[in-house]
Amino acid sequence: MVKLIALYKQPEDPKAFDEHYENIHAPLAKKMPGLKRMEVTKIYGAPMGESPYYLLAEMYFENKEALNQAMQSEEGKAAAKDLMGFAGKLVTMMLGEVTESEVIEGR
Amino acid sequence: MVKLIALYKQPEDPKAFDEHYENIHAPLAKKMPGLKRMEVTKIYGAPMGESPYYLLAEMYFENKEALNQAMQSEEGKAAAKDLMGFAGKLVTMMLGEVTESEVIEGR
Repeated sequence: MVKLIALYKQPEDPKAFDEHYENIHAPLAKKMPGLKRMEVTKIYGAPMGESPYYLLAEMYFENKEALNQAMQSEEGKAAAKDLMGFAGKLVTMMLGEVTESEVIEGR
Repeated sequence: MVKLIALYKQPEDPKAFDEHYENIHAPLAKKMPGLKRMEVTKIYGAPMGESPYYLLAEMYFENKEALNQAMQSEEGKAAAKDLMGFAGKLVTMMLGEVTESEVIEGR
């Protein structure tokens, strides 16, 4: 499994960010062909001090080819265009391969 | 569900990093009480250009209290101490609450 990762820094206007993210951007991202799972995490802090980050979005695909195809699709391009428009200065994008996913039992 | 997130920048010596991470650090992290799941993602690139990041580790807990207790436990302190020793300059730590986890069906 691989994932497309979007890590957003704190926006100047969190309310406006949330509204655009939830109502416009996330629905566009979910249209990407081959998307298997989406996990969105609100960053609420750091072990020490404050975090410069605000949101982590992870979009799972079967493999690297499927992820590449999704980014090159019309739906992927539409999501990327929207992203650059509302959060181009806030977002860091990464491509990752899940090398370990372990459920810890019995606790 | 909440998660403790560790995002590592590219190390100078990836082989030494991997060896320490896999053989020393990950086993220490997995001893944290209350840990439900651990997902490790190797960053292999970015949609445009290269990524400054190398590894993303996500440790899932039931709630914020459980995560706080894990960080304050002896096991959590041992993992943190090891982390600072081998990757203090590379790592960014975040605390996040999963607000959406959606399986996309039928594709």
